This record gives sequence, C-alpha cells and structure tokens, in this order.
Amino acid sequence: MRKAVVLLSGGLDSTTVLALAQATGYDCYTISFDYGQRHNFELEAAAAIAAQAAVAAHKVIRLDLGAIGGSALTDPDIAVPQAAQHSDVASGIPVTYVPARNTVFLSLALGWAEVLGAQDIFIGVNAVDYSGYPDCRPAFIEAFEHVANLATKAGVEGLQMTIHTPLIAMSKGEIIQAGSELGIDYGRTVSCYRADEAGRACGRCDACHLRTAGFEQAGLPDPTPYLS
Amino acid sequence: MRKAVVLLSGGLDSTTVLALAQATGYDCYTISFDYGQRHNFELEAAAAIAAQAAVAAHKVIRLDLGAIGGSALTDPDIAVPQAAQHSDVASGIPVTYVPARNTVFLSLALGWAEVLGAQDIFIGVNAVDYSGYPDCRPAFIEAFEHVANLATKAGVEGLQMTIHTPLIAMSKGEIIQAGSELGIDYGRTVSCYRADEAGRACGRCDACHLRTAGFEQAGLPDPTPYLS
Repeated sequence: MRKAVVLLSGGLDSTTVLALAQATGYDCYTISFDYGQRHNFELEAAAAIAAQAAVAAHKVIRLDLGAIGGSALTDPDIAVPQAAQHSDVASGIPVTYVPARNTVFLSLALGWAEVLGAQDIFIGVNAVDYSGYPDCRPAFIEAFEHVANLATKAGVEGLQMTIHTPLIAMSKGEIIQAGSELGIDYGRTVSCYRADEAGRACGRCDACHLRTAGFEQAGLPDPTPYLS
Repeated sequence: MRKAVVLLSGGLDSTTVLALAQATGYDCYTISFDYGQRHNFELEAAAAIAAQAAVAAHKVIRLDLGAIGGSALTDPDIAVPQAAQHSDVASGIPVTYVPARNTVFLSLALGWAEVLGAQDIFIGVNAVDYSGYPDCRPAFIEAFEHVANLATKAGVEGLQMTIHTPLIAMSKGEIIQAGSELGIDYGRTVSCYRADEAGRACGRCDACHLRTAGFEQAGLPDPTPYLS
C-alpha cells in the first residue's frame, strides 16, 4: 500500500477526504494542527475520527499562529462575524482567513511525508462552496505541488510528489453525499468557527451556513448538534 | 520605508542578509523559529542581533518540528556528523537536513508579511558554499515566490510578493566580506550545529567547516569562539 499524509482538521471536508483516500487504497497518516484556533474542539474530533478510521498514525503539530495574528480564528480581538457580513471590503477575503494557513499546513505535511517516504498528500480544499480564501484555489495547489517537488529529497531523486484535492470541484452537497455513501457519521465532525466546548455549533457563522446548505443540497438530514 | 520580513537564525548568513536589507532601505521585521533545534543558542544570538540592529520588531515562533523527526538537528537519536562524512548515500543530502524546513519557515514569514502589509521577504539561502539542501536552490525559491503570490490577499489584489535571496550566488568568503564592510561583528553569530550553551563552536561539523573556510577566503580573522 502507498502511504499518504492526510490533513485532518476534524471538519466535514477533511473527514470526507480521509474516507476517500482510504477507499482509493492509501495507507493514511493523518496530521492536525494545534495553532491557537478558537475552535479547539476540532482537535478532539480529529483524533476520534482518526482512531475510528484506524489510520496508520495520527500526529498533532503545535504551532503558534496566534503570534502572527491577523485572523478572527486566532486573535481574540477580532470577532467572528455571522454569515454574509464577513468580507473584507477591498478583497472579498473574510476576517476568518488565517494568513498563509494552507501554505504552512501543507509545508508541515510535506516534511512528514518526506520522513515517511510518502509521495502523496491529501487536503480538503474546495473551490466551489468555500469561504473565499485565496489558498483554496486550484492555481495555489498546483504552485505548491511544484514547490513540494523542488523542496524535497524525493524531488531531487526524481520521484513525483502529488497534492491530492479530491473535493476541489465538488459542491458541499456532493461532498456530503460522497461521504455518506462511505459511511461517515457527520455528527462527529465540527465545522463551526464558534463551537462551544462540547462541539455544539452556533448555526450562524459562515462555516455553519455552508454546512447547513450542504445537507439541504444532499437531501440528507443534518446531524449537527446546534446550540440554539 | 518599505517593510520587509527577514528570516533571522542568528547565524552568519541571515545576519548578513539583515544588514544588507537595512542598507538597501527596508524597515525590517525579523522572525526566528524555536523548532526543537539542538543549537538553541542561536535563538539568543538572533534576539541580540535584532536588538543591536534596531529592527522594527523581532518575533520568535514556536514550532514542533521535532515531532516530524527525520533530522540530526531535531532528533536526539541521529548524530550530527563531522564534515565530509555527512551525506546520505542515495541523494547526497546530509542528515542535518530538516525536512521541508525552508518551506515551513517561508510560509510562516509569508503569514506575518501578510499581516504587516509587507511584500518583501528576505532569506539567507546560498547555492554556492552550502550543505546540499534541496530547499536552498534558486528553482525552489522561484517556486515558493509563485506560491506566495497565489496564497495571499496581496496576490489576489495584484500586488507582487518578492522573496529576496541576496546571498544566493555569493561564496562564503564574499558574504563575510560584504557583512564586514557593513560593520557586522561575526563573533556574535552562531553557525555550529553542535555549539555548546555558551555558543562555542565545535570546529568540526559541516557548518563550522564552511564558516572557517569562508574567513580564509575573505582574508579576515575568524572571530568564532571554538571549543577546542
């Protein structure tokens, strides 16, 4: 079996990616990041999901992104807005955007892949029902894959590193449908930017909004525990 | 003044880069990484150098690269070899190589640059007298610059992010000469992979070997405090 490193946040998308990677026959090594995010319940969800999926190994990397600031997800002085009030006027990029987050996460996944001798990395970015983050676009992923091939021993030795984005062209409804067919219990995943300590979702932020609409599109009951 | 983020390890190369960036007129923000490296004395040297250079701000990001492993610099089970015994047989890449290190460091510098509104990042990579790390090559830097432009708000808004590598084509001797002309006291910088707690260098590892040869090339006295 080929080894793959899978970025696992504990959310709906990355949990689906893990199931898809395993269904394709990869031996999966999951990686999560403790980066000062507000929604820390995610990390517990990720560990539980990794354990249930019987991954080869699950790793949590501590990383002080809060020291850099600039995001409502890591800076307590920036409020997480409700859906449809969220954009930066100039760029359309929301305040929940964490500067360079996917670049940082992919870099660390790349480092682990190199140590494992894995040439495949899976990430649950999505360019359809997404929050408008620049580092979720296909052009960004292609550019990072090029970096991955130049930055590593594998690249020097002529092996190909691949960044897999199985969700990139899927709607949230299609993602939920695909995952449900693979037996995922989405009640265990957390998407909300403002979830409480028990993992209950606010139902109002951008992430909740996208998720709720996704279950409607998929024609499936929404198992998310909501606060209200 | 244009703002720039400068990666500062406390070593000879990055200290020279900081002096060059300041001499070119940039308002410099220095960033160091506490990543589980053996040579932790570097961090103290970096802070002292940043203070003496009167930078706009100096930031230390904690990051658990040891959790990934795979390098003699972060894994106590892998010995740091002496010079000329250091290569991995298959690739020529030494065991002191930290997987994806420059990709991770540049990603975090990019995140901070984005928060600061800086479009310029300086890194002291060198493709002449270097240790054979894949992520020091010009092609890697170009690829990362492309990622930087796709990953960020600045890129979305059409601004150009630039990764500056003023040392990339210089020999170690030329670097030392340039820095000495700018008044750098290299006795304050640390290069050794096995420096003791007082910052004294072993004189035998690859980093020491390159540094010593550099002072010879430059025709300048070597101010490095050596153990032996």
